[in-house]
Amino acid sequence: MVAMGPDELNDFLAAAFPDVELSARVTRADDEGVELTWPFHASQLRPGGTLSGPTLMTLADTVAYASVVSRIGPEFLTVTSHLAIDFLRKPPPADLRATGELLKVGRRQAVIAVRIYSTADDELVAYSTSTYALPSTPTVPRADRAEP
Amino acid sequence: MVAMGPDELNDFLAAAFPDVELSARVTRADDEGVELTWPFHASQLRPGGTLSGPTLMTLADTVAYASVVSRIGPEFLTVTSHLAIDFLRKPPPADLRATGELLKVGRRQAVIAVRIYSTADDELVAYSTSTYALPSTPTVPRADRAEP
Amino acid sequence: MVAMGPDELNDFLAAAFPDVELSARVTRADDEGVELTWPFHASQLRPGGTLSGPTLMTLADTVAYASVVSRIGPEFLTVTSHLAIDFLRKPPPADLRATGELLKVGRRQAVIAVRIYSTADDELVAYSTSTYALPSTPTVPRADRAEP
Amino acid sequence: MVAMGPDELNDFLAAAFPDVELSARVTRADDEGVELTWPFHASQLRPGGTLSGPTLMTLADTVAYASVVSRIGPEFLTVTSHLAIDFLRKPPPADLRATGELLKVGRRQAVIAVRIYSTADDELVAYSTSTYALPSTPTVPRADRAEP
Repeated sequence: MVAMGPDELNDFLAAAFPDVELSARVTRADDEGVELTWPFHASQLRPGGTLSGPTLMTLADTVAYASVVSRIGPEFLTVTSHLAIDFLRKPPPADLRATGELLKVGRRQAVIAVRIYSTADDELVAYSTSTYALPSTPTVPRADRAEP
Repeated sequence: MVAMGPDELNDFLAAAFPDVELSARVTRADDEGVELTWPFHASQLRPGGTLSGPTLMTLADTVAYASVVSRIGPEFLTVTSHLAIDFLRKPPPADLRATGELLKVGRRQAVIAVRIYSTADDELVAYSTSTYALPSTPTVPRADRAEP
Repeated sequence: MVAMGPDELNDFLAAAFPDVELSARVTRADDEGVELTWPFHASQLRPGGTLSGPTLMTLADTVAYASVVSRIGPEFLTVTSHLAIDFLRKPPPADLRATGELLKVGRRQAVIAVRIYSTADDELVAYSTSTYALPSTPTVPRADRAEP
Repeated sequence: MVAMGPDELNDFLAAAFPDVELSARVTRADDEGVELTWPFHASQLRPGGTLSGPTLMTLADTVAYASVVSRIGPEFLTVTSHLAIDFLRKPPPADLRATGELLKVGRRQAVIAVRIYSTADDELVAYSTSTYALPSTPTVPRADRAEP
C-alpha cells in the first residue's frame, strides 16, 4: 500500500526542490516502487555528446527518494546514506526513463535498486543501488491530518 | 609526474563544462592526486538546510575526473564507469574542500578515492570511490591542435 | 545464446575450485543469466546463529562468475574487478538460492546483478552488483581447438 | 580511546570464529583503526595462481569488524550492512597486511575504509569501504561476565 501516488509525488517533488528545475514526471507508484520520466535538457550534456555522470546520479538519487516517500509518506525527512551507480552505456541526448524498486523498507533503512533507460532505444544505460536512512519519528507533520 | 598542474586543470575544467557554472578551484595536483575547493551556492541546498546529495556526488565525480586527467593529460576522453559514495555527516551551508587520491592507474582503468570535507569545521562529510575507464588511444591529439 | 548450460557449469565450477568444497548446484543458465542453489553448512554460521557475511559474499561472487562464463565460455580467464553487496535481512541457517542477471557484457567488462534468497521463506536476504574484467584474448584453449 | 587493544582483539576474533581457521594477527589498534596480518594458505588460491576474491573480501570484512569492536567493545553484536571492494592488482601467493580506518562511528552505523597490501612488495592490492550496523543496546553485558 503506497502513501503517495503519482500526482501526489509530482507535487511533492516540485515543492521539495523549488530552486532546481525539476521536470521529472512520475508515471507509476505501487507496492514495488516507482517509475518516472526525466526530460532531456542541453545542460545535461558533457564533452562527447553524451549525458553527464552527474545527470544520471541525480536521477538515480531522485528516483530512490521518490520510491521511499511513496511508501512512507512525506512526513518523514529521509536522507541518502549511500549510493552506488554503474554506468553501462553512454546515453544519447534523449529523455530518460527510470524505475525504482524497493528491496527493503526496515525500521532504520530503505534499500532501493534503480534502473535507468534511454527512451531513444529503451536500452539500460545505468544501474544504481542506494540506501536511505529513515528517522525514527515523523519530522514534517501533515497539514491536513485530523488526529483521532 | 603529473601531466597537468592546478592552473592547467582549472582552465581545462572551465573549458570542459561551459554550460555549467563550475567555480571549483584546484589547489593541488601532484603524484598522489588533487585537492580542490568547491564554493557554496544557494542552489546546493535541500530541504533541512543541508547540502544536497547530488551536490556532493557531482563534486566527487569532478574531483575523480580532475585526478585522472591531472595524471594522464587532457588528450584522453575518459568516462566514469562506477561511482560509490557514503554520506557521513550532513554538511552545513559552507564551502567544501575535497581530495582525490589515485589508488591505481592501469591500462584500462583508474580507481580514485575521494574525501569531501566541510570548510566550516574541517569535518569529513562524504567519502567516495570511483572507477574511470581509460580509452586505449588518445582522442584529442595535442600535436594537431592549433593554438589560438 | 549461452556458451555453457547448467551441467557444463557445474562441472566447470567443481574443476575450477578443487581445494574448496563447492557443492553449489546450477539449476538455470539462459540468456538472462543463471540460478543456483547453495547448500547450508555449519561452517557458514557466525555468532548469533545467522549466516556469515563472507558466506554471502562468496556466493555472490560465485554466481556472478557463473553468469559470465555461462555467456562467454570457459576459455576466458575473467577476474572480479569490483563487488558491492547489501545485506538486507539476517539469513536463517538454511540453503540459499541465488540468481545472477547479466546487465551488460561488453568488450572489456561484464556487470552482473545478484539476488540471494533464503530457501527457508524465499525472502531476499542480500543484493549484490559486481563487475568482471574480460581479457581481450582467450587464455585457456578449448581441447578441441586445432592449434595453428 | 579504544575499547580493545591488539591482544584482546586477537583473543576475541579467535573465540568469535571457532569453526574457521582464523590465523589473522592484529598488530595495531588505536583511535584511527586497526592493522592486521593475514597469513597465506594454499586454500586461498584460485585458477591463475593468485589469491581469490572471497579471500580478500573475507579479510576486508574481518578488518572492518575488528576496527568497529576495537572502538565500541565486544558487548555489541554488530553486523555488516554493506560492503564494497575494488580489486586493484592480482595479489601473489603471500601474506597480506590490511588496515582499517574508522571514517565514522555514529549512533546507528560505523563506516570503515580498508586497504589491503601484499607483503611480497607492499603494493595496494584491494580497497574496500563497508558499513556496520550498530545495535542500540549492548547484547552481551560486561557486568555479568566473570573476570578470570
